[in-house]
Amino acid sequence: MSETRRSATGRIALAIHGGAGTIPRDRMTADRAGRYEEALEKALKAGYEVLEHDGTSLDAVTAAVIVLEDSPLFNAGCGAVFNAAGKHELDAAVMEGAGLRAGAVAGVRRVKNPVLAARAVMERTPHVMLIGSAADAFARRSGLEMVARDYYSTPQRRAALKRAQAAEGEAQAGMTEAERHGTVGAVALDATGNLAAATSTGGFTNKLPGRVGDSPVIGAGTYADNRACAVSGTGDGEYFIRRALAYDLTVRMRYLDEPLDRAADSALQAVVELGGSGGLVAIDAQGNITMPFSTEGMYRGCVKDGKFAIDIFRRPGASRHSGENQDPF
Amino acid sequence: MSETRRSATGRIALAIHGGAGTIPRDRMTADRAGRYEEALEKALKAGYEVLEHDGTSLDAVTAAVIVLEDSPLFNAGCGAVFNAAGKHELDAAVMEGAGLRAGAVAGVRRVKNPVLAARAVMERTPHVMLIGSAADAFARRSGLEMVARDYYSTPQRRAALKRAQAAEGEAQAGMTEAERHGTVGAVALDATGNLAAATSTGGFTNKLPGRVGDSPVIGAGTYADNRACAVSGTGDGEYFIRRALAYDLTVRMRYLDEPLDRAADSALQAVVELGGSGGLVAIDAQGNITMPFSTEGMYRGCVKDGKFAIDIFRRPGASRHSGENQDPF
Repeated sequence: MSETRRSATGRIALAIHGGAGTIPRDRMTADRAGRYEEALEKALKAGYEVLEHDGTSLDAVTAAVIVLEDSPLFNAGCGAVFNAAGKHELDAAVMEGAGLRAGAVAGVRRVKNPVLAARAVMERTPHVMLIGSAADAFARRSGLEMVARDYYSTPQRRAALKRAQAAEGEAQAGMTEAERHGTVGAVALDATGNLAAATSTGGFTNKLPGRVGDSPVIGAGTYADNRACAVSGTGDGEYFIRRALAYDLTVRMRYLDEPLDRAADSALQAVVELGGSGGLVAIDAQGNITMPFSTEGMYRGCVKDGKFAIDIFRRPGASRHSGENQDPF
Repeated sequence: MSETRRSATGRIALAIHGGAGTIPRDRMTADRAGRYEEALEKALKAGYEVLEHDGTSLDAVTAAVIVLEDSPLFNAGCGAVFNAAGKHELDAAVMEGAGLRAGAVAGVRRVKNPVLAARAVMERTPHVMLIGSAADAFARRSGLEMVARDYYSTPQRRAALKRAQAAEGEAQAGMTEAERHGTVGAVALDATGNLAAATSTGGFTNKLPGRVGDSPVIGAGTYADNRACAVSGTGDGEYFIRRALAYDLTVRMRYLDEPLDRAADSALQAVVELGGSGGLVAIDAQGNITMPFSTEGMYRGCVKDGKFAIDIFRRPGASRHSGENQDPF
């Protein structure tokens, strides 16, 4: 592309998450951590390569999320959790910061990459949200790759369902944060100055069939506005919805003139005050990145100016409440 | 209830809508208008009676919306539009301004009153949103009245689908605003100072199966926060979602210190700028009411201090852009 189409800075940047709430630190082996870091790096590289070749932020977040959906490690696409009926129901959303275009699917069961179905809703229909088997049928008509129902299943997630159902009555008592939460997402700034966000999830283990969380709810788990930032959230979806977390972050910047990191902390803090937990990744039009979370850890990574940063747990000394929200660069 | 539990003002108030986009003025006979006004009055009375007997705002908006869902005149419950597959898929949401509790259902096909299903999600589950047949199954388990699929069907809506499908390729060209839009909703302030909002819809005629609009999306078509106001929207749902209209209205009040009517105008104007149209009803903690719309008309009504006001079209002299947003009292 020509230089004239570049933004003032021409800066490109990308941040991703693989879910807030990780395996507890004492159960995380070096080998296990290495596999997560490898997958996060692969996703970052896939997205950043798009940006380096003057691709759009939408293409970048899509590419990154596809890698995370295809990895069995994360609760999205292959590796998604089981619901209470022993099935998978997946949700995803995408949004562009330039024209506020958005697309989402909820409760899909057959499309390999829900993020592509969400994108097809945005690009091929006048709608924002399609749900259930009709969304799968739409994905099929759109030429997307469909899979058998058990494609998403992994032994680890099945074991998590058994544990959850054994702890009957205690609800989510027997589950780690990683089993309760788990979502993947990406936000990006491309060379033309456009922002985009994408989020994809299997929900949480043993969830009620038909339950939809924040990921596909535009304004809750996913939002992008070039005038502010792009956001992808992960955590207790119900609280994110009730607080309109992602949109709240953008209007804290627009209406209150808060900088990105403060807006993200405040928006997340509002979720925590309501009783929820989780995290988010966000990026503004200058390429500033923030990745706060209220949980023990959040699989996360970002890349800017060619430098990669990947992390899982809270850094020593970082406060639980303010989150790991510093720009790592 | 005791006086001590009353709010500072003890004021009670209620506003409802039966959808932005009415039958064109030149096709609206006095008889027809009378039937709409009668139904609106019945809904207002049902909700206001709750408030007068020291009931909650949640009970009031539920009672009002049930009347509108049960009336075949409005696009919600009985009288809901047909989708492109010749079926009905209904969406609804409720929210309380006190604790920010919320519930929603999307794509239900068998529950008589979707607003009650949304409320059951809020009150009987840790979730905010349930979709599809699982949401119907949940409603049934909750003891709600279920109906046959054709319960919602009316000859008028079937004729509208035929007209829409005859105008093939021209999308919504052959449809009036009333056939495109149509949603019902209510917002209320009770004597304890608590706000609540409820919205219910059949979507729009000839919609893609599985399509979900703004009504059940918390923050888009429905939101309530005692610190600001309660909102129920009606219109081009996709634009309401992309602008997070209902939440936007509340934060314009909270973050920008805008009064209710200006916040509502600004939030609706943002939808119009994006290319959408519609309207909303909103009420704040002082009992101020606003009912702006960008369409030719909006079925609407409100009651405060025992005085009822019901209207359909824009009042002579009212500007299209600022909407019919004055408190009618």
